[in-house]
Amino acid sequence: MDKIIENNVNDIVDTILKDYTHDRSIDKMKLFTQPDRFVIIKIIDNLMKIMYPGYFRDTSHKIYIMENSTRVLIEDTLFRLNKQIELALKYSPNYENADDCELHVEAQRLTVDFFHTLPKVRALLETDLQAAFDGDPAAYSKEEVILSYPGLQAITINRLAHELFLLNVPLIPRIMTEYAHSTTGIDIHPGATIGEYFFIDHGTGIVVGETTTIGNNVKIYQGVTLGALSTRGGQKLQGKKRHPTIGDNVTIYAGASILGGDSIIGENCVIGSNVFITTSIPAGTKVNIKNQELKYHQGKKTVNEPVDPDETWFYII
Amino acid sequence: MDKIIENNVNDIVDTILKDYTHDRSIDKMKLFTQPDRFVIIKIIDNLMKIMYPGYFRDTSHKIYIMENSTRVLIEDTLFRLNKQIELALKYSPNYENADDCELHVEAQRLTVDFFHTLPKVRALLETDLQAAFDGDPAAYSKEEVILSYPGLQAITINRLAHELFLLNVPLIPRIMTEYAHSTTGIDIHPGATIGEYFFIDHGTGIVVGETTTIGNNVKIYQGVTLGALSTRGGQKLQGKKRHPTIGDNVTIYAGASILGGDSIIGENCVIGSNVFITTSIPAGTKVNIKNQELKYHQGKKTVNEPVDPDETWFYII
Amino acid sequence: MDKIIENNVNDIVDTILKDYTHDRSIDKMKLFTQPDRFVIIKIIDNLMKIMYPGYFRDTSHKIYIMENSTRVLIEDTLFRLNKQIELALKYSPNYENADDCELHVEAQRLTVDFFHTLPKVRALLETDLQAAFDGDPAAYSKEEVILSYPGLQAITINRLAHELFLLNVPLIPRIMTEYAHSTTGIDIHPGATIGEYFFIDHGTGIVVGETTTIGNNVKIYQGVTLGALSTRGGQKLQGKKRHPTIGDNVTIYAGASILGGDSIIGENCVIGSNVFITTSIPAGTKVNIKNQELKYHQGKKTVNEPVDPDETWFYII
Repeated sequence: MDKIIENNVNDIVDTILKDYTHDRSIDKMKLFTQPDRFVIIKIIDNLMKIMYPGYFRDTSHKIYIMENSTRVLIEDTLFRLNKQIELALKYSPNYENADDCELHVEAQRLTVDFFHTLPKVRALLETDLQAAFDGDPAAYSKEEVILSYPGLQAITINRLAHELFLLNVPLIPRIMTEYAHSTTGIDIHPGATIGEYFFIDHGTGIVVGETTTIGNNVKIYQGVTLGALSTRGGQKLQGKKRHPTIGDNVTIYAGASILGGDSIIGENCVIGSNVFITTSIPAGTKVNIKNQELKYHQGKKTVNEPVDPDETWFYII
Repeated sequence: MDKIIENNVNDIVDTILKDYTHDRSIDKMKLFTQPDRFVIIKIIDNLMKIMYPGYFRDTSHKIYIMENSTRVLIEDTLFRLNKQIELALKYSPNYENADDCELHVEAQRLTVDFFHTLPKVRALLETDLQAAFDGDPAAYSKEEVILSYPGLQAITINRLAHELFLLNVPLIPRIMTEYAHSTTGIDIHPGATIGEYFFIDHGTGIVVGETTTIGNNVKIYQGVTLGALSTRGGQKLQGKKRHPTIGDNVTIYAGASILGGDSIIGENCVIGSNVFITTSIPAGTKVNIKNQELKYHQGKKTVNEPVDPDETWFYII
Repeated sequence: MDKIIENNVNDIVDTILKDYTHDRSIDKMKLFTQPDRFVIIKIIDNLMKIMYPGYFRDTSHKIYIMENSTRVLIEDTLFRLNKQIELALKYSPNYENADDCELHVEAQRLTVDFFHTLPKVRALLETDLQAAFDGDPAAYSKEEVILSYPGLQAITINRLAHELFLLNVPLIPRIMTEYAHSTTGIDIHPGATIGEYFFIDHGTGIVVGETTTIGNNVKIYQGVTLGALSTRGGQKLQGKKRHPTIGDNVTIYAGASILGGDSIIGENCVIGSNVFITTSIPAGTKVNIKNQELKYHQGKKTVNEPVDPDETWFYII
């Protein structure tokens, strides 16, 4: 009785190996033929160090001259990203008929193209940093924003992933933004187009869909959804404009939902907390929900309405 | 003045060691007598590799023959899980009078029983994968879903934890699902019973309670709560059916709450965003909130109602 | 064509290094002059082991005598935290004119002062643990709460960060609480003042602002915001009381928002799900939203109102 596991190991292994032979999607296991999520997370770490060189450092070796360590960091990132892109291209309909040699060359070209976008991305991130510091009275310094704000982390990873998305690299952009989603609770699809000076406060629960367009100087708070309307269309809707367009200088407060590809929020609008919008709003409009009607009970009495003393008050837990 | 810490180390250590002698719950420290959260996270990583063998790999060594590495992986997982279960069983009221030898045998039996459920779990996960791909126009490939979707990650860990829950293993199932909660924002109790073709989109903020039952082909979106109603009953409610029952082919949109153990949502229902339900809904019903009444202001004018020009408009930040 | 990356490495490196010379905030890179986020995460791990010595252990070496390993752990944490505080003090307006020697001494003093608060913090955590176990029918044991509940993890890190905040240590407290935010979805500013027996259930999406005050025996659920009201005041509001005051024995259910520095929720209040409050509430009051008016459709018929049979029903995705 003491060797139950030992006696069952071979049976268990055989059962599981046999379970891999059903030819389902989960059974595909061509070795080393797809991007590796953990390598992509390492690439994100590297890119954070390249974006903010004085803030995130490699502490595994002593650095005297930043230039030297930056050279090594960039080379390492080029090498890893190139390899992952080459693996990812096999999932692109654009390269269905390409041979391995063509993919090899194309992956290198895309990797180099991506790196040439980095100064543009860094210029945008400087505006995001400024917007976060200016917009939040709880921000004591810009260093605090860079080292701790989830909103800046999410938009950094999103802006990088968006460049790969624009280069039509499959899989990797989404793996990157879902990693940001995992660490910040902020779910921005890499396809979304976002202007400069973008500020996300708190951020948990934010969803920004693939075909969303956001102007300059926009602020959004926790729980905001920029989403799609659907009648269970599923895959048939792929590629269509399904998500809203947000103008410059718009603020969208916590819990608001703006939905649909035809919804355009004009410049300088302010969308209040918990507002639910499926249409366009003209420029310069403030939108709020009407004052919520509340019930107040004190013991068996009520303040503002007749009340059934036997009414049960329930609460969600 | 330069050696403040050095001069205070012994005093600090003594103060903290003394603080451990108050016999409170936080002071319990019988060595190696309880499950280790970090080992359980390692077990989850292993199980992800066993569930999706071609997608999550051990990159620490070169693999030529998948079968060989799978054998090692399964043996390692059996060994670790067995040890953690043996530690956890001491917390089960079912084994209060068992001696160490009985626990040793029982842990092995439960470990083997758990592994025999894996093909059944994998068959369910294939349906979840299909549901996610079919339901989301932003999904470009099934590989993208496996490698990046938090919903599939959460349901994978939940289905595994649920099998351990059904075997009455204490502690470990909840540590597993709270790890999924931490990485995905999706909080599903391991006790919840969930049918095939289950799809979670976005997912942040979802809460599914312990005694929830969910049918086949159900979709839920971010911020949905399948929760309990309570009058601060606390521990007295343990084990009672407190959470709703959801029929087949039901869709529950973002932010909806369905509450209470007597609430049954019939087959083919559609529950709209932000709906708050504490009763049953007959099969085939669509439920929406009535159109929200909104206030629109432009400068000092309003579009749809008389307005006090001195009214202050506040926003949550 | 085969060496595209090799041929472009130097150009890419030069472009990025040149991009670092624009003298923007993101270009600051004085070596080793600011706190390191990853070291602070290591310090948090150590502090979790010091707070709950029997629950989170260093598994990298065998432990026979807990006292010995605790001594090493405390020394390591003192050393690391002291170094990070010394780096952080340069960001404090209080030490603008201090020389390196003064900072060196001050950092040691603050480190020692922080460690002397740990028994007080542990006493509070024991009350939080008790509140979580008493309040949640899904909690099977206190061990389960310590090993898996995100609410206890968040309040533990928050109480530690709050002590550093009270000592006016810059940067580090916020990095600590944003780490907790990342792993739990619970965003509590280190400035918030929180009484004993504090219980957070589920927790994802909770936001508690910097100047919030919370009494004893308070429970809050997922998605609760204790936030500020603003008219885009930004940095001008720094340091002002902007967030609410919550009395003893108050329960705040999922999705409720309580906003503004003048809002005081009296003792023994119960705030229902999704309530939105910007004023004070007298002690002993229960506040709920009025019953939501819902639309029910079955095929082309409705149950409770006339309906346009051609009306399109949309859903957010």
